[in-house]
Amino acid sequence: MVHTSKRIDGIAGSPIRKLTPLAEAAMARGVKVYHLNIGQPDIKTPQEGLAALRHVDRTVLEYSPSQGFLSLREKMSAYYAGYGMDYTPDQIMVTTGGSEAVLFSFLACLDPGDEIITTDPTYANYITFAAAAGINVRTIMTRIEDNFALPPAEEFEKLVTSRTRAILVCNPNNPSGSLYSAAEMLMLSEIVRRHDLFLFSDEVYREFVYGQAEYFSAGHLSGVDENVVILDSFSKRYSECGIRIGAVVSKNRSVMESVLKLGQARLSPPLLGQIVAEASCGVGMEYLGPIIREYDHRRNVLVEGLKSIPGVMTSVPAGAFYTIARLPVDDADRFCAWCLSDFEYEGETVMMAPASGFYFTPGAGRSEVRIAYVLEAKSLERAVFLLSKALEKYLSE
Amino acid sequence: MVHTSKRIDGIAGSPIRKLTPLAEAAMARGVKVYHLNIGQPDIKTPQEGLAALRHVDRTVLEYSPSQGFLSLREKMSAYYAGYGMDYTPDQIMVTTGGSEAVLFSFLACLDPGDEIITTDPTYANYITFAAAAGINVRTIMTRIEDNFALPPAEEFEKLVTSRTRAILVCNPNNPSGSLYSAAEMLMLSEIVRRHDLFLFSDEVYREFVYGQAEYFSAGHLSGVDENVVILDSFSKRYSECGIRIGAVVSKNRSVMESVLKLGQARLSPPLLGQIVAEASCGVGMEYLGPIIREYDHRRNVLVEGLKSIPGVMTSVPAGAFYTIARLPVDDADRFCAWCLSDFEYEGETVMMAPASGFYFTPGAGRSEVRIAYVLEAKSLERAVFLLSKALEKYLSE
Repeated sequence: MVHTSKRIDGIAGSPIRKLTPLAEAAMARGVKVYHLNIGQPDIKTPQEGLAALRHVDRTVLEYSPSQGFLSLREKMSAYYAGYGMDYTPDQIMVTTGGSEAVLFSFLACLDPGDEIITTDPTYANYITFAAAAGINVRTIMTRIEDNFALPPAEEFEKLVTSRTRAILVCNPNNPSGSLYSAAEMLMLSEIVRRHDLFLFSDEVYREFVYGQAEYFSAGHLSGVDENVVILDSFSKRYSECGIRIGAVVSKNRSVMESVLKLGQARLSPPLLGQIVAEASCGVGMEYLGPIIREYDHRRNVLVEGLKSIPGVMTSVPAGAFYTIARLPVDDADRFCAWCLSDFEYEGETVMMAPASGFYFTPGAGRSEVRIAYVLEAKSLERAVFLLSKALEKYLSE
Repeated sequence: MVHTSKRIDGIAGSPIRKLTPLAEAAMARGVKVYHLNIGQPDIKTPQEGLAALRHVDRTVLEYSPSQGFLSLREKMSAYYAGYGMDYTPDQIMVTTGGSEAVLFSFLACLDPGDEIITTDPTYANYITFAAAAGINVRTIMTRIEDNFALPPAEEFEKLVTSRTRAILVCNPNNPSGSLYSAAEMLMLSEIVRRHDLFLFSDEVYREFVYGQAEYFSAGHLSGVDENVVILDSFSKRYSECGIRIGAVVSKNRSVMESVLKLGQARLSPPLLGQIVAEASCGVGMEYLGPIIREYDHRRNVLVEGLKSIPGVMTSVPAGAFYTIARLPVDDADRFCAWCLSDFEYEGETVMMAPASGFYFTPGAGRSEVRIAYVLEAKSLERAVFLLSKALEKYLSE
């Protein structure tokens, strides 16, 4: 008998997709399912990106440079400049989505057995990539009561060992919607400088910031040029998740050289995706402004709705398009499954992602769910209403 | 000081790209460079694929399923059936190019410290991916005198240890152009069965088989369904290297489950590439037939040309579009660099890939070069003539 690897056998797999068969069965029964579980925006891709695609007049769809087209990296450099971030095209490598940026950064910067510190809860796919890379994850707990803000420096310091090589944050945060302040980012810069660590900053939701909040990027930090590695993606910004274009961005030349070696091994990032990305990259706030206002509205609708349900507590997200809510149930995994298998109200139900899948600490977040607010406000209102009805029934059984 | 990982620092990087700055400098001086170094075909992408792209009428370029579109996998299943290979859509996972198929198979099947056996010379990027995955490579030497055929089973057996988990072959072979016979494949199937190993078969050049040779796939082997993992790609078959669509294909359910976990972590393969791939997949021998005849012609022109140069020896490739030639020089790395930096004849020169970069064993293949025959026959003839002139001058200095 041939056996697959222990590194992958040990991974739980995607926390969101476990419920998919139940959702499909519900839909097959004719039940309408409101998808609060996924991060696929309903926003249209910019016309400029779609038009570029229709005008591709190449007769050979050939390899592009391993680091991505220079013309795309120049546009990205200008985009970063608009955010007060100073990165030359040489400090940008185009990757196959933000996912490849995460994996390549892990491989380029950490050896098997090295450790990385990230928040708990965290983006679940970091855990899979860490397992793939053979690196060990240590997490620092963040709390719904604090809107999942970063704990003080001494809590991070407790986790630093001789094998620690990096701190990884997602800002704005998936799954919590937390947005880190300048003070929080400065705290991280002090820690990575003191201990010679990398600071991986996943900023794929950079634009999605609400209310009065200001965005503070790891690229705004000074004195840590060698430490900071930004992980980026076009997916959410321009609602083009399918093009699979992201980036590793860093002033650290060794990092860029190592990432390029991996990039050369995989030959090139997607050609067609780069064409769409480059055309989208010039699109500014005339496209993004209304989208962000729309998300802000959805966020308010969702948070107000959740707060009105007895026993439900939610963090108030300041960025991205997720929130984590605590429900008056012992086991949100079971409740989310039940919503799909045993509940409907007027022929409708809700699908949510149990938050347990986003926690690295076993048993943590068992009463919590992650809710994406990518549906239009009216659907969100209805979905929250269905959640209240589901809880009512579930708790009375 | 923060340090990058040893696993990547230790990698030499792409053997082909080292000479790129010299080639660019030569072109900047006005010298015409014949590129015998790369595997980018000059063949046009099928019209069907390009047309599908122009007709994309989606308004959101969203995620596709992690395992790839079912409609694409159904077409691939039918394509394999045409090759006498029996794979259902569930036994196919679409990857981001053949490169991701290699990396995911390594991660899914081998743990850090495990060993894989491959040929020497081998596809250089296997070495990078093995280093990334923390797995150890052992190689079995193949020889230009035997057209790089596989050595007998006992040579493989000598390399098997308690940590050996897989044998990896590229068939037809890049860089050698060798095509493995049914007898060679049956020998491999015996070894992997006896020792419970995976047989990774990289078949991205499956169509490119010349003369009287018949293609024998790992998918034609019986009794080793659990062992065989086929790595595939649309890149070469349809001259669409830039779409980044490949596949992992296996009847082993554990392998497919582990590969899918990695696929879910990276969310989805390229959407646009899949659209092109699906449209291309119906294209048959009316497209490929003339291309293969053309490559066969180029192969003959190249081999005859090389044989006519005093002191040059070449293998006779039966597949793919590469050959390895042995030149009457001690150090082909130096000679290839010299061709770009110090030589020109009537304002022209050649760029070749030193074969040393494809050998895992230090010092092996130092007099050899890999030559791709992706240029049209006339250019190939001229390039071979330039090589003969370069050798003449180099050896007289």
